[in-house]
Amino acid sequence: MFKGLLSSLLVLVLVATTSIMVKSEKATVKKQKRVPQTLSRGWGDQLIWAQTYEEALFWARSRSKPLMVIFHMDDCPHSQALKKAFAKDKEIQTLADEHFILLNLVYETTDKHLSPDGQYVPRILFVDPSMTVRADITGRYSNRIYAYEPNDMKLLLSNMQRAKTFLKTEL
Amino acid sequence: MFKGLLSSLLVLVLVATTSIMVKSEKATVKKQKRVPQTLSRGWGDQLIWAQTYEEALFWARSRSKPLMVIFHMDDCPHSQALKKAFAKDKEIQTLADEHFILLNLVYETTDKHLSPDGQYVPRILFVDPSMTVRADITGRYSNRIYAYEPNDMKLLLSNMQRAKTFLKTEL
Repeated sequence: MFKGLLSSLLVLVLVATTSIMVKSEKATVKKQKRVPQTLSRGWGDQLIWAQTYEEALFWARSRSKPLMVIFHMDDCPHSQALKKAFAKDKEIQTLADEHFILLNLVYETTDKHLSPDGQYVPRILFVDPSMTVRADITGRYSNRIYAYEPNDMKLLLSNMQRAKTFLKTEL
Repeated sequence: MFKGLLSSLLVLVLVATTSIMVKSEKATVKKQKRVPQTLSRGWGDQLIWAQTYEEALFWARSRSKPLMVIFHMDDCPHSQALKKAFAKDKEIQTLADEHFILLNLVYETTDKHLSPDGQYVPRILFVDPSMTVRADITGRYSNRIYAYEPNDMKLLLSNMQRAKTFLKTEL
């Protein structure tokens, strides 16, 4: 009988401990503040990012700057690797900051001109201030011509320089 | 002659001081870090915000939650006042967090259904998970029927409750 009581007591203690643990866990979840989401999503917190394609086009046209659109996904390792290389490349960050309107998107837009060879990530497209997608500025991969890898930063930099040369000098 | 030398010296000192000041000012500007832009833009840092209309529609459909779209502008005092009331209203923030897909935009989208009575700010529209804009859920102003003011939070709350009742029970 003593043994039975002891085991009942043990069960009670266990239940009590468990419910306390669950409670404190819940409390932690409730209390824990979410980190506010950034527009940069890690591609350069110090850069100015447009929120939407419409906004980006407006700024590209009104400030006469080329637009760089980066398509990526949070759960894509290639996107993550490219983002890391992009964010730590000082030449790219400076050029982007001074001469480009910037947009990074985790969802496709309705503009089919932004997916000349299909919708995939990561891919980077440039749009001229004349509102023309620069389908001529490509990476080095024949199957996904707007894709870049972390070791393509020199090519991306030279492509950014190309995008700075506008299609038309007068808009 | 001594006076001349003294004044030359004074000019030199002044020039030196000025250039030091200019230099240190430049250094400050360079060093000063920008605050990363948030997707909430002040409408509730603890809420999860979609970045684009396309993303928001995807989440509304896939999670069967109504979408709330807030159009606003940074330099519009009415938008700023509404934002302040919206962000500090705990009932609205909780309801928004638990039952809505959220999007705040400073630029118009290409979807004309989101501007049934014109493009103005601030205005709030709801979209049913069936992808139908709830043009029937309006504020109290006859000239701008999707506008809200800071003292309309009770109406906005009841409109959010209405948006939770879907147009179709089966998608």
